[in-house]
Amino acid sequence: MVKKYNVCVLGATGMVGKEMMRVLEQRNFPVNKFLPLASERTAGSKVTFQGKEYTVELAEPKSFAGMEIGLFSAGAKPSAALAPEAAKHGCVVIDNTSHFRMDPNVPLIVPEVNGHALKGHKGIIANPNCSTAQMVLPLKPIYDAVGIERLVISTYQATSGWGKEAIAEMYEQTKLLLDNPNAKVPVKYLPKQIAFNVVPQIDSFTANGYTKEELKMVNETRKILEDETIRITATTVRVPVAIGHSESVNIQTKKKITAQEVRELIGQFPTVKVVDDPQNGGYPTPIDCVGQDETLVGRIREDISIPNGIEMWIVADNLRRGAALNAVLIAERMIKDGLL
Amino acid sequence: MVKKYNVCVLGATGMVGKEMMRVLEQRNFPVNKFLPLASERTAGSKVTFQGKEYTVELAEPKSFAGMEIGLFSAGAKPSAALAPEAAKHGCVVIDNTSHFRMDPNVPLIVPEVNGHALKGHKGIIANPNCSTAQMVLPLKPIYDAVGIERLVISTYQATSGWGKEAIAEMYEQTKLLLDNPNAKVPVKYLPKQIAFNVVPQIDSFTANGYTKEELKMVNETRKILEDETIRITATTVRVPVAIGHSESVNIQTKKKITAQEVRELIGQFPTVKVVDDPQNGGYPTPIDCVGQDETLVGRIREDISIPNGIEMWIVADNLRRGAALNAVLIAERMIKDGLL
Repeated sequence: MVKKYNVCVLGATGMVGKEMMRVLEQRNFPVNKFLPLASERTAGSKVTFQGKEYTVELAEPKSFAGMEIGLFSAGAKPSAALAPEAAKHGCVVIDNTSHFRMDPNVPLIVPEVNGHALKGHKGIIANPNCSTAQMVLPLKPIYDAVGIERLVISTYQATSGWGKEAIAEMYEQTKLLLDNPNAKVPVKYLPKQIAFNVVPQIDSFTANGYTKEELKMVNETRKILEDETIRITATTVRVPVAIGHSESVNIQTKKKITAQEVRELIGQFPTVKVVDDPQNGGYPTPIDCVGQDETLVGRIREDISIPNGIEMWIVADNLRRGAALNAVLIAERMIKDGLL
Repeated sequence: MVKKYNVCVLGATGMVGKEMMRVLEQRNFPVNKFLPLASERTAGSKVTFQGKEYTVELAEPKSFAGMEIGLFSAGAKPSAALAPEAAKHGCVVIDNTSHFRMDPNVPLIVPEVNGHALKGHKGIIANPNCSTAQMVLPLKPIYDAVGIERLVISTYQATSGWGKEAIAEMYEQTKLLLDNPNAKVPVKYLPKQIAFNVVPQIDSFTANGYTKEELKMVNETRKILEDETIRITATTVRVPVAIGHSESVNIQTKKKITAQEVRELIGQFPTVKVVDDPQNGGYPTPIDCVGQDETLVGRIREDISIPNGIEMWIVADNLRRGAALNAVLIAERMIKDGLL
């Protein structure tokens, strides 16, 4: 008989938490006891998992007694406070927040890329930032084949990356502007009006002029590809899309690789799908990726500005591939490797 | 007394044509006789200029007799057919289409950048592609100060760049999706659904996988900066915005320049405005540029991936700065330089 695990989800009422529960159900993850947890703000509300209604419990250190896997997505502060407590109780935490990602004692994992780094974990595993997770998937086979010298990234990120309130704000602003194009719309969750606009700020600014989101892409990509010499710069931009991050990625490789070789390499890579027949409309857009496990890659072409360059366009469901699915794939890999 | 000119606008019923008329009015351009022209599709309709109603006339070779300045924005085919006819009649054509831009006998002009190249013109002047025009303005002082080695560009382009039908399509799709998020929306003018989506295709694809729009940015930038050695790559993307193109531009310079030096240089450049106080929300978005003459530049920072690199975010009104204003500024410069 397959062993089943006691699984808790912290942040069970959030967008990623709900997506985690959906992914666990859809993949028939071997769940024994299920425990939805949340902070004070939403504890007490109801969620449904595998056809059964649960009351979301307030997360506290003792919640984790008897739990074996904790999928955390309630923000950096609850993770900082509760992940070590969970680990103490023997509950392995797969944490979707930024808090532990750059901790040298915590593996930062996209299973298809660096699942091997789960070995020797100390009870806490970090899930990367959504924009990083989807990007490293098609980069990995290129890195292995010809090396990567430098990445210049510009992103087109969905409002769901900032939570369900940000999506609601986009729709509310959109309604008001359809009625009156000159309306001054309420702006509360996102830094500026997002409806019929684009906003080059995700997360807060740091001293060097980059945002935290941009530096996450720089640092997390290096950690996951296990190469601190890759030179990376990024500009991360919010666009009026509900779900699905898109990325324009310019890759300078160490050796020459053709566009066709790239298509073949990444087409064979697990959970990556090449959608690249532009003359016939074959390129991915955000609406194509919603609810999909695959990271979609198109606009693959040889950079005409340098001898060893590739341009590509990478699209994935930020809630699923960038967060919930990645967390569950980590748990599955740990089971397979006997690490749980 | 100031000399006044007989001015015709070809494409007077289009978005850019209308903006050209607005700019002529707002700048008190010295217009003597005014003649609005269009193709068969819209000839006969009415437009108002300087408080007076005009019937739009069908454009044909004889239309240009007695005209001195022709502002053309009716598409490449009418320009190809009629610009040489107008020039024969002594009417200097400032053409907003792509048809003549790369013709070595035709100056391609952003007046603040290479107005000197108007000298020796042969009756036809080309206005650059909107995304190129706004970009070369802040690039010029950087080029002059430290040289430019390479540009990696990703754009966020408004639907108005594809005409008024594309804006209407965006609003129609948006309305349908607000009522029913799963609606299959009509797609006619733009290549894919643009509402709550982004589309990495502007204009058609060429053999090397780049779109024509992307290659326009490459070739036109080199022609305007008068340096064929600048290495350029671009990914051009349509976003659900009505007016205002945004560009994420990574600049590799020949010599080191600091972000502060860049701010000072481009802050002194005509028609460019630095909006760069990110900690206090100081960065431009498309809604900030509508109706403005200025090209807005923010997110200026030193690229952390290379020794000589600058990242910046460039926003301008594509109909105005990218087209109509640029055309009128060309005419003004020609008057000033005695070339008309």
